[in-house]
Amino acid sequence: MSGGDKGAPGEPSIDTVREAATRLAGRANRTPVLTSRTLDERVGGSVFLKCESFQRSGSFKFRGAYNAASQLSEEERSCGILTFSSGNHAQAMALAGKLLGIAVTVVMPNNAPLSKRRATEGYGAEVILYDPLEGSREEIARRLKWERGSALIPPFDHPNIIAGAGTAALELFDEVEGIDLLLVQCGGGGLLSGSAIAATAAGARVIGVEPRLADDATRTFRTGTMQTIRNPPTIADGLRTPSLGEITWPIIRHRVSDMVTVEESSILDTMHFLWTRMKIVVEPSGAVALSALFEKVVSAEGLRVGVIVSGGNVDLDAACGMLGGR
Amino acid sequence: MSGGDKGAPGEPSIDTVREAATRLAGRANRTPVLTSRTLDERVGGSVFLKCESFQRSGSFKFRGAYNAASQLSEEERSCGILTFSSGNHAQAMALAGKLLGIAVTVVMPNNAPLSKRRATEGYGAEVILYDPLEGSREEIARRLKWERGSALIPPFDHPNIIAGAGTAALELFDEVEGIDLLLVQCGGGGLLSGSAIAATAAGARVIGVEPRLADDATRTFRTGTMQTIRNPPTIADGLRTPSLGEITWPIIRHRVSDMVTVEESSILDTMHFLWTRMKIVVEPSGAVALSALFEKVVSAEGLRVGVIVSGGNVDLDAACGMLGGR
Repeated sequence: MSGGDKGAPGEPSIDTVREAATRLAGRANRTPVLTSRTLDERVGGSVFLKCESFQRSGSFKFRGAYNAASQLSEEERSCGILTFSSGNHAQAMALAGKLLGIAVTVVMPNNAPLSKRRATEGYGAEVILYDPLEGSREEIARRLKWERGSALIPPFDHPNIIAGAGTAALELFDEVEGIDLLLVQCGGGGLLSGSAIAATAAGARVIGVEPRLADDATRTFRTGTMQTIRNPPTIADGLRTPSLGEITWPIIRHRVSDMVTVEESSILDTMHFLWTRMKIVVEPSGAVALSALFEKVVSAEGLRVGVIVSGGNVDLDAACGMLGGR
Repeated sequence: MSGGDKGAPGEPSIDTVREAATRLAGRANRTPVLTSRTLDERVGGSVFLKCESFQRSGSFKFRGAYNAASQLSEEERSCGILTFSSGNHAQAMALAGKLLGIAVTVVMPNNAPLSKRRATEGYGAEVILYDPLEGSREEIARRLKWERGSALIPPFDHPNIIAGAGTAALELFDEVEGIDLLLVQCGGGGLLSGSAIAATAAGARVIGVEPRLADDATRTFRTGTMQTIRNPPTIADGLRTPSLGEITWPIIRHRVSDMVTVEESSILDTMHFLWTRMKIVVEPSGAVALSALFEKVVSAEGLRVGVIVSGGNVDLDAACGMLGGR
């Protein structure tokens, strides 16, 4: 790393992440860091779980959404926010808009889970459904942007989304001293790149973790060229994004030590451990980073390891179906 | 209340609860206090959930078990601890014994859930099964006590168990200022009586909450004479104790403002809320106190209300069966 850790051009700096934290103070929850003697014995190190499942709207996504929405000008606010997501970003942006008095429109595929749609509408956002077989969400979003003049805030590839996402790791490093290694799940790379900016400033290594069935970022990291996987069949529904973004990829390339993958069965085992032993409700994506320790693709031996538990939004019936009989 | 709040004869004082807290420091978890804007809006007050589901062994029971076990003399320790329980007290006493190097024997009915038996054995305790149709646990415990000379520590009706249980409320009052009202579930009354001692010292009212199907303590409170219900069919398995104890009842009579009951459907609704909105795994008994607010048998309007969430030990398959389809 050169030039006093300036990072890639256009990349948010640690100061930008700190500014985001100031903007989020009193708005986002400062989420708890949970530890467990059983967990530490199992992996041979000290593990600190930063539980964004307790974040407002149920995932870390609120941090980026609020950070981005709150920086819009008065004029932009009056034209509303437009975004596309079938998951946690939709709910997070809807809640951020509600708190800031900004109208939010979410473009969502018509096969999105009804629970996600209801939660998004419950926060007062307008949901526009489209048929993913007939059109692309980007195309519909572009048309709406042209019609309404709304500000388009995408789910991850945006400096203010990345800076907001990085505030979870910032809080963890502030609260727990001497973390050697930070494990973060990776979908489009918003959380991973933001966390990596915070980790670099704290002098910790970062490893990104993906489901093996959705290993586009790992293959991008290994080959150095952008890899894409459409609709990967992983249970970690938050990590089904086809590829890294144009802004997140250079940050990850520059600041992440390694990328690893985990099996679907590990994700389920880890979810089961978190529910039954740690007593927290975590969605499949939220269990991915810890799975790397349980599957022993990353060693915690003798280390202090931070792990981001990214969210807890899960359909209870679906989760019971996955976790039953274990 | 007379005589400078001295309480009933033989009743643990607030100083005894404070001494228990000192004994538990670094041994028990200081459990988190969770809040939720959604919850506050729903009940019209400020609610503070003291989450003993995050306590070691998965429930508040560890506080009393460790407090009692750690006060045994060297000679008593060498003869081991004997107790009877099919639930959380068994696991808690087994863990306390393990930490203190004291052998623990638990007398458990042969129809106790296998998961509870395994968890108790997992902490290194010996489990002795008996046929509840052929003998009583008290009888078997008496025989073993005579054979082995072990110290018998019952699940709730013991001053050191009560004082230990009271430390959860003590922490809550220490952390959150100005609590008007504390809601506590009631089985044998160990948690309720200990909490009531802490609440009196903090100047807060206490209301005990029971499942309507297991309303022995409520009826005892109303009539002034001890009522008993054997094997009540409530889903709140931790609250199936037949009656209050000889030590817990006078404390409850003296210090608790009121007792109320809740329906089974409310307990399930509350559990569902805690799992899906608060993202915490709570057992049926642990949802009983909050149910009183949701069922509106107690009003939180304009108040600061503490609620003890007593534990999170639940068989996941069984819980999924109860909560499915909501």
